[in-house]
Amino acid sequence: MIYITRRERFNAAHKLFREDWSDEKNLEVFGKCSNPNWHGHNYDLFVTVKGEINPQTGFLIDLRALKEIIQTHVTNKLDHRNINMDVDFMKDKMASTEVLAVEIYNQLKPHIEAHGVKIHKIKLVETENNFVEYRGE
Amino acid sequence: MIYITRRERFNAAHKLFREDWSDEKNLEVFGKCSNPNWHGHNYDLFVTVKGEINPQTGFLIDLRALKEIIQTHVTNKLDHRNINMDVDFMKDKMASTEVLAVEIYNQLKPHIEAHGVKIHKIKLVETENNFVEYRGE
Amino acid sequence: MIYITRRERFNAAHKLFREDWSDEKNLEVFGKCSNPNWHGHNYDLFVTVKGEINPQTGFLIDLRALKEIIQTHVTNKLDHRNINMDVDFMKDKMASTEVLAVEIYNQLKPHIEAHGVKIHKIKLVETENNFVEYRGE
Amino acid sequence: MIYITRRERFNAAHKLFREDWSDEKNLEVFGKCSNPNWHGHNYDLFVTVKGEINPQTGFLIDLRALKEIIQTHVTNKLDHRNINMDVDFMKDKMASTEVLAVEIYNQLKPHIEAHGVKIHKIKLVETENNFVEYRGE
Amino acid sequence: MIYITRRERFNAAHKLFREDWSDEKNLEVFGKCSNPNWHGHNYDLFVTVKGEINPQTGFLIDLRALKEIIQTHVTNKLDHRNINMDVDFMKDKMASTEVLAVEIYNQLKPHIEAHGVKIHKIKLVETENNFVEYRGE
Amino acid sequence: MIYITRRERFNAAHKLFREDWSDEKNLEVFGKCSNPNWHGHNYDLFVTVKGEINPQTGFLIDLRALKEIIQTHVTNKLDHRNINMDVDFMKDKMASTEVLAVEIYNQLKPHIEAHGVKIHKIKLVETENNFVEYRGE
Repeated sequence: MIYITRRERFNAAHKLFREDWSDEKNLEVFGKCSNPNWHGHNYDLFVTVKGEINPQTGFLIDLRALKEIIQTHVTNKLDHRNINMDVDFMKDKMASTEVLAVEIYNQLKPHIEAHGVKIHKIKLVETENNFVEYRGE
Repeated sequence: MIYITRRERFNAAHKLFREDWSDEKNLEVFGKCSNPNWHGHNYDLFVTVKGEINPQTGFLIDLRALKEIIQTHVTNKLDHRNINMDVDFMKDKMASTEVLAVEIYNQLKPHIEAHGVKIHKIKLVETENNFVEYRGE
Repeated sequence: MIYITRRERFNAAHKLFREDWSDEKNLEVFGKCSNPNWHGHNYDLFVTVKGEINPQTGFLIDLRALKEIIQTHVTNKLDHRNINMDVDFMKDKMASTEVLAVEIYNQLKPHIEAHGVKIHKIKLVETENNFVEYRGE
Repeated sequence: MIYITRRERFNAAHKLFREDWSDEKNLEVFGKCSNPNWHGHNYDLFVTVKGEINPQTGFLIDLRALKEIIQTHVTNKLDHRNINMDVDFMKDKMASTEVLAVEIYNQLKPHIEAHGVKIHKIKLVETENNFVEYRGE
Repeated sequence: MIYITRRERFNAAHKLFREDWSDEKNLEVFGKCSNPNWHGHNYDLFVTVKGEINPQTGFLIDLRALKEIIQTHVTNKLDHRNINMDVDFMKDKMASTEVLAVEIYNQLKPHIEAHGVKIHKIKLVETENNFVEYRGE
Repeated sequence: MIYITRRERFNAAHKLFREDWSDEKNLEVFGKCSNPNWHGHNYDLFVTVKGEINPQTGFLIDLRALKEIIQTHVTNKLDHRNINMDVDFMKDKMASTEVLAVEIYNQLKPHIEAHGVKIHKIKLVETENNFVEYRGE
């Protein structure tokens, strides 16, 4: 069993805000992340897959294929976009790093596993001081 | 002559867009940076000051004072904000990294130089692949 | 099950030295880390917690609360301090990275778990070339 | 149970190429990594060991000993070398990051475990965008 | 006057070796860098240009254009290549970081300056411990 | 004219404290850096030299020689030491980053310039948020 990780990046705007709450409650719960005019981040996304090494190639998976899956199904949809407004798989969801990591995992899983490897983990880094991990558990 | 640099950070949304241009022209010139619903970045700001070492303290400037100047006059106004909409010193200006670096320099210069040191350089890092420097020249 | 990690930092002095050993034996076992006049490090502390996402907020835990717990119970006690001499929870203990990681875990566990999440892992980075991890096992 | 990780580095040349395949097939499968005149990388190797803390020293293992094991059995053989041509333990093997990580693990395991600790994981970073992990499973 | 820097990366093999010297002399002067079977690096290339901000766009230069110049004239020729054997502008030159930085500068200068900005500096990072800078002086 | 930079590292303890001031005044001026029991840092030292490329070797200076100069005259004296107490060239000087950078420059200059190159700059990084530069001006 070997694990390989590919990093892709995207820059996006978001806010943490519930329409069914008052501005005061949003500010109390989400702090400056609730600023109505948005803020943004450079996100680093690490996708880890696992499986057996192919003895002919020495590869677990062709990284060009993994890169294309991540870009097509995730980062092209997020990069230079507004997570709350522009991203189909985040419609009507909270744009927190936690929820985003889960949804990215769900987007990638069928496409990665069609290549004969297992998706192991998503790591989504929002700032140098915080990141989220999700393993589908 | 000694140089000391302090890093501060802020996370903000912006877009590159001229109201007096068509959407097509904005897209042609600014590419995906013109997305109407904003995108964002984790910005790293490096402020370099220069002068003589105080022989009593061994300091050029008290870094706590420099940090407070940068936070009060720049990063508190930018962090978790929309650069185009929320920041007084960016009103009616293009929200490019180049213009933002110049305006940050202009905000900081009088407050830093009131402490008896010279401002030397602003370095503003937008992504791991690009940054801007301005020396007031 | 989602995992979120918060980084905090502290700069501290320490030495590796047993009073009940000769200087020669300390030097033999601990090398230059036994220098009697201390040395120091910039430590990076990563605290990982785990649990279920709150569907209302999209959060596992409010990161402002996690940050305050880490600062109050750990990094404020260590930052700009001497680990051997100044830190209540390290009294009479070896100031190695291994022991420090275990004691930080023990300090944080009750305060973190009072917030309805589990502490998963402490990662303590001493230099760019070595770090320790502890999961309470 | 505590985990400690040591980083060592090496700079090496390699290519991904099967002599029993045509150049066209090598190019199709391995892309630019099959360039016949080699290319190279700065590799970062992280070796994680685990076990119990020695109560006398506060150590899991003397990091000077771990460093020497890694250098003697692995990085001195790889640094400023050609992985395909110069490295005894890679003879007749594909020089992929996956295979290299497995073989490094196999080289290190007996020497590390002779010191009374367990080898836990090898992490081998080829570029800032991809890395491999192997746990001997 | 504003300065903007773009980073591009390439992974390449090289050696430091003079055919007109004995192997012993090559080893004495170039050390392990003279290994006949090559070694390699992940190089980070930082290209800094300078000029006036365009008041309409807020740009010094369109970074997409700068990126394409660097890739077309430099990094596509170096990436996954052998610097001594495969690169037209390094033919019959020593493949040291110093010489490579000068030749990259010479390759880029006419193409960058055709865009109405000045090339200011090349910074070429070979490892985390050493880098070269060249300003055309 | 080409510039080459070598990084070396050291981990040291220090405090900012004047014996001729009261504890209160030390605390007021130096803040937590005046803690009597010391604190410490992982310092990154970047030494930049400049000169002409040797056409035979492609080198400005043999980096092995530069590394040995820095280690012998600076980092071996500082690493795992107390800057205030253990370092000959810091005796009776304030242990600030500014003063340390100047004294490191003065230590290195004659030894580097004996090799036929000029010392250009010292950059001394104390934390990820602050660093000092000195050019002998």
